[in-house]
Amino acid sequence: MSPLSRFSINQMTVRQLSLPELANACGHRGVPAVGLWREPVREYGVEAAAKLVRDAGLTVTTLCRGGFFTAVDPAERRRALDDNRTAIDEAATLGTDTLVLVSGGLPAGDKDLPGARERIADALAELGPYAQERGVRLAIEPLHPMYASDRCVVSTLGQALDLAERFPAEQVGVCVDTYHIWWDDHAPAQIARAGAGGRLHTFQLADWTTPLPEGVLTGRGQLGDGAIDLAYWWRLVDAAGYSGSVEVELFNSGLWAREDGAEVLRETAESFAAVAAEATAAT
Amino acid sequence: MSPLSRFSINQMTVRQLSLPELANACGHRGVPAVGLWREPVREYGVEAAAKLVRDAGLTVTTLCRGGFFTAVDPAERRRALDDNRTAIDEAATLGTDTLVLVSGGLPAGDKDLPGARERIADALAELGPYAQERGVRLAIEPLHPMYASDRCVVSTLGQALDLAERFPAEQVGVCVDTYHIWWDDHAPAQIARAGAGGRLHTFQLADWTTPLPEGVLTGRGQLGDGAIDLAYWWRLVDAAGYSGSVEVELFNSGLWAREDGAEVLRETAESFAAVAAEATAAT
Repeated sequence: MSPLSRFSINQMTVRQLSLPELANACGHRGVPAVGLWREPVREYGVEAAAKLVRDAGLTVTTLCRGGFFTAVDPAERRRALDDNRTAIDEAATLGTDTLVLVSGGLPAGDKDLPGARERIADALAELGPYAQERGVRLAIEPLHPMYASDRCVVSTLGQALDLAERFPAEQVGVCVDTYHIWWDDHAPAQIARAGAGGRLHTFQLADWTTPLPEGVLTGRGQLGDGAIDLAYWWRLVDAAGYSGSVEVELFNSGLWAREDGAEVLRETAESFAAVAAEATAAT
Repeated sequence: MSPLSRFSINQMTVRQLSLPELANACGHRGVPAVGLWREPVREYGVEAAAKLVRDAGLTVTTLCRGGFFTAVDPAERRRALDDNRTAIDEAATLGTDTLVLVSGGLPAGDKDLPGARERIADALAELGPYAQERGVRLAIEPLHPMYASDRCVVSTLGQALDLAERFPAEQVGVCVDTYHIWWDDHAPAQIARAGAGGRLHTFQLADWTTPLPEGVLTGRGQLGDGAIDLAYWWRLVDAAGYSGSVEVELFNSGLWAREDGAEVLRETAESFAAVAAEATAAT
């Protein structure tokens, strides 16, 4: 098996590449899959992007991202639901079965975390059937607790599964990203729970490096540069029955500042291959 | 009851104040208690500091901080244990019964969180009896998961209690700080667990504001400025049987940059009184 057979490069890791450049670089490097983001896809045109990746023989593992379900204001909630239906449509057009959800933070001035989590459930109830009809699964991504106020009130895999399990597994599951869950001693058991329930929809890798940058959004480390035992988590998701692609999603201002995105892809593929070898080595 | 009767000002909140200035400002404002830090206390002289606060009629609620137990290197571990014995001695001299522990992060290049947590337990086994003989309790402070790699591998109250409960409650308990645990839906049950076991050694308040600054150390929000329902957590610790001081510990570069530390103390006391009123209002 090729060391890159399960590799998917998330578009944000090499955001300096246009979609055609990304498809080209993947072909050149033998990268079989990509995770896409809505904004650059819409900029290029959703149909055109779908054709581009199809022609390049690339699998689209996920579309990022839907979500932001926590508004209280009815008009804002309606807009969010409409936008998520559009995201589901886009995922279907792109041929991916997984829409990653960043669920949303606390509305300004609001301190009610359980209430915000309940509004996420309300949105999932509305969107789940719509997604299922289009062959798309919603993947709740628990985000690191440092994003709890402004980005995602779902901070642990356990919380994500508590939400997901209210709905059929064909509609709602979870996205496991090492960057967000690596510190959590309950996460291994929750990965097993996700796998047993058929809800482990996608698995992403990023490493944890410090110091964190201001705003803590763009400091995800290249695989191997940080504190996370990535192969350990890979083995856990595989033991839970996951056999899908492993996406590398690095928000990293250092990588983004580099001119040659294809070179960043090459390095990331190498780092990925090293983790893959460690994760799948006979023990 | 005075609105400040349970107020303790942690020295770091008003670090621009020297110890005599702090004692003076507390007297002026009717602040009955302080949490002290080792570095400024040692600079002033431990005996002299003890006399100063005693003469001012101030209660010393905690000494910050011991810990940093996660080194692998034997010489480094020995130094850490020696330093913690000194910290315990200092706490006893200052007349406080609580030494707050920041347990330590991962050693460079090490990715083994469970191993690091086990080394903390080893250190506690050695230090617990020493502390108890001197009337000092060790309070493990779970730090927010964003500090897991470089500062404290104990990221949740549950983890802290798992460690503490291996030892007598007179030796090892926990420090509950809203800043570190507010996102955790398991924390309310863990507060009850801590209270039931007599291990809720101290309670600290700080608010959560964003964006986080680079390095994420100096962005703790003034009470009321952020996303945390502080009164909710206060009621939880009281319901768990806690009746001690409530310390306000703000690492906040904005507050530190202000020339008039006494004015920062005044504002903090006002913010505290507002939270206290909300927390203790008849419902």
